[in-house]
Amino acid sequence: EDVANASETAGTTVDGLKAVDGLNITREGKVFKITLNRPKKFNALTFDMYGAIQNALDLASKDKTTSITVIAANGPYFSAGNDLTNFEAASGGDREKVEEMAKVAKVVLHEYVDAYIRHEKPLIGLVNGPAVGIAVTVLGLFDYVIASDRATFHTPFAPLGQSPEGCSSYTFPLLMGPLKASELLLFCKKISAETAKSYGLVNEVVPLQEFHAHTQKTIEEFSEIPPESLSINKTHMRSLHREKLFEINNVECDLIATRWLSKECHDAVTAFIARSAQK
Amino acid sequence: EDVANASETAGTTVDGLKAVDGLNITREGKVFKITLNRPKKFNALTFDMYGAIQNALDLASKDKTTSITVIAANGPYFSAGNDLTNFEAASGGDREKVEEMAKVAKVVLHEYVDAYIRHEKPLIGLVNGPAVGIAVTVLGLFDYVIASDRATFHTPFAPLGQSPEGCSSYTFPLLMGPLKASELLLFCKKISAETAKSYGLVNEVVPLQEFHAHTQKTIEEFSEIPPESLSINKTHMRSLHREKLFEINNVECDLIATRWLSKECHDAVTAFIARSAQK
Amino acid sequence: EDVANASETAGTTVDGLKAVDGLNITREGKVFKITLNRPKKFNALTFDMYGAIQNALDLASKDKTTSITVIAANGPYFSAGNDLTNFEAASGGDREKVEEMAKVAKVVLHEYVDAYIRHEKPLIGLVNGPAVGIAVTVLGLFDYVIASDRATFHTPFAPLGQSPEGCSSYTFPLLMGPLKASELLLFCKKISAETAKSYGLVNEVVPLQEFHAHTQKTIEEFSEIPPESLSINKTHMRSLHREKLFEINNVECDLIATRWLSKECHDAVTAFIARSAQK
Repeated sequence: EDVANASETAGTTVDGLKAVDGLNITREGKVFKITLNRPKKFNALTFDMYGAIQNALDLASKDKTTSITVIAANGPYFSAGNDLTNFEAASGGDREKVEEMAKVAKVVLHEYVDAYIRHEKPLIGLVNGPAVGIAVTVLGLFDYVIASDRATFHTPFAPLGQSPEGCSSYTFPLLMGPLKASELLLFCKKISAETAKSYGLVNEVVPLQEFHAHTQKTIEEFSEIPPESLSINKTHMRSLHREKLFEINNVECDLIATRWLSKECHDAVTAFIARSAQK
Repeated sequence: EDVANASETAGTTVDGLKAVDGLNITREGKVFKITLNRPKKFNALTFDMYGAIQNALDLASKDKTTSITVIAANGPYFSAGNDLTNFEAASGGDREKVEEMAKVAKVVLHEYVDAYIRHEKPLIGLVNGPAVGIAVTVLGLFDYVIASDRATFHTPFAPLGQSPEGCSSYTFPLLMGPLKASELLLFCKKISAETAKSYGLVNEVVPLQEFHAHTQKTIEEFSEIPPESLSINKTHMRSLHREKLFEINNVECDLIATRWLSKECHDAVTAFIARSAQK
Repeated sequence: EDVANASETAGTTVDGLKAVDGLNITREGKVFKITLNRPKKFNALTFDMYGAIQNALDLASKDKTTSITVIAANGPYFSAGNDLTNFEAASGGDREKVEEMAKVAKVVLHEYVDAYIRHEKPLIGLVNGPAVGIAVTVLGLFDYVIASDRATFHTPFAPLGQSPEGCSSYTFPLLMGPLKASELLLFCKKISAETAKSYGLVNEVVPLQEFHAHTQKTIEEFSEIPPESLSINKTHMRSLHREKLFEINNVECDLIATRWLSKECHDAVTAFIARSAQK
């Protein structure tokens, strides 16, 4: 990234959290808000952003002044998911580098998803535009998702030689049943916001021009519900699945780490990075 | 309640069950029918009604002459759920009284829900109008629900400082997926009959003017299916979830009993009873 | 069956599998295809067909040249399910014969369903027309189902004195929630392709005249996804439910074997065979 780009996306933060590029962390009334802010890169997640979101979720969990946590994004995209340049090492021929990368990425992924599982406040997603990969899969760990009519949902694991993460192999069958889960996670169909709603992955679809006003109003309303009830009821509902979710996250991370070392994955990532370099 | 009101709602019953105000228990052909009959109080459930419904469900389970069990209601409401005057004690300042009330209510609730879990016949709900609180949550333990187009479904736990019951924290995620379950159980959205159908909480929606004729026809048809198959297949399908449901009922009752002692609950119930008294 | 009929439906097969009447087994590019071919009998399943499908699924699992497995059917029906003449013994008065039949049928059913549970490739169902009984219930073990608009889905267990199989008592509540599962499995409602889609049992509905072209295109596309990813991701997603599914299959087979010995079942099968003989 060039300097101009970096300064545009320099992060803002709150007390107790380090600022990282591409992420704004704010409190707005009773709302703790995490905003992806790397629009030129379609809000793809760098390792720094994974770590900072995880820390923000943990801080928000214990925050006394806010009652709900919101994840939103700037620009036309919600998030392109994992920034594949995180995997640049995997595109070279050096096996040792690839194994080192897989080891690091597995820890980053594992801790990122665990932070969603253990979050103790209602978590609301504002999906303004296209969402890809892990930006889709973790939605199954949210409590409420509003999508704009420009949002799409795509989990292209197989063409990239990868496997499902974010506990989606557990949450998606619960949200939409096993057959529709396979449509997304095995066969990698991209779906619209309306389809995502009918599949239980989204609660509401709102036209883009009304998206900001509507989501502001909704999160304000939600944040006014008695806070102890919100946190206790959220934690109670999560408790029925928590141990299972931690276990699934382990299984998924073990599997995807082996996939990152596969020829299918190597070939796909190499081709992707070559295409990106040409642009 | 005044005397006139009480006589209007004096219960009818069948051999082996005590009559209680506000409840009619009848056999109609092969149908065992429990009818909420306290329309001036929106069919809110008194402690007596909880106990009598529980006993009726248990009797119906073993009844040789009927093959299905139906719960219906008189008047424009299905049921306002728990009668908050059951909690009158909690609105005063006397901590000991509140704790005594919570102890009693927890046992009543626990046994009421257990009776649904262990019921051995297909259980059909006829939701003529608005349903609130526990009148909604236990629907996840039914086998078939017909709603009129006047029915609405509302579980306002959080504003009352309470937590989900009726095994809804388990059944709702299974019925509609975790995100839509949170919409109802965390954020307390009131939904229409059509939405409830799309959320899997209702099988059919029928215009109110056709409701009586249609539901009569349907329950007659269902009651003609070979009775051994009905009971064995119902019991088999329940068996896959039974132990989990009993466990969830325990967890939910423990949690709600602590909520009844909370300041959030005390304030909400006090305000509610003050408003009711002014009417 | 007369000779003409038998020759029309003489099976074709691939190396390593015995041909049986009523079943075609082929490889088409990267697709392993099992086609029901007994149209005059509505593609009802004989004991031979159960065994051959099971063997074909196991062979396809390990097949190096194909990446997906497809089950399709010839003629206007998908499949009438279990051929009730398999149960002819049960219609007589000889208790010993009935018990012997139940013992054999239970093993056939158990092994048939286990082969679906352990299948290691994505399994796609092409439901051209009406599907009945076990041809419906096992769909919950598929990964993708395309239905024509002529397809219907019917599981008339109770009127035949039987109980659900094919792991449907587990998969159907997961696909459509417990209430809609009961609509099919307890109350035996026949549903349309569109309803089946809204219930999560079908991914796509296609007009019959476009069915062949559309399904060919779709399965070709799916078969081009990197094969290791397809198999690994399918196996991973199944792994989260596999032990439970084997257990449910046991429970269901034990239950249905007792139902085959019931008076309700005997009377229903006797009546069915009498009606068939009159035609």
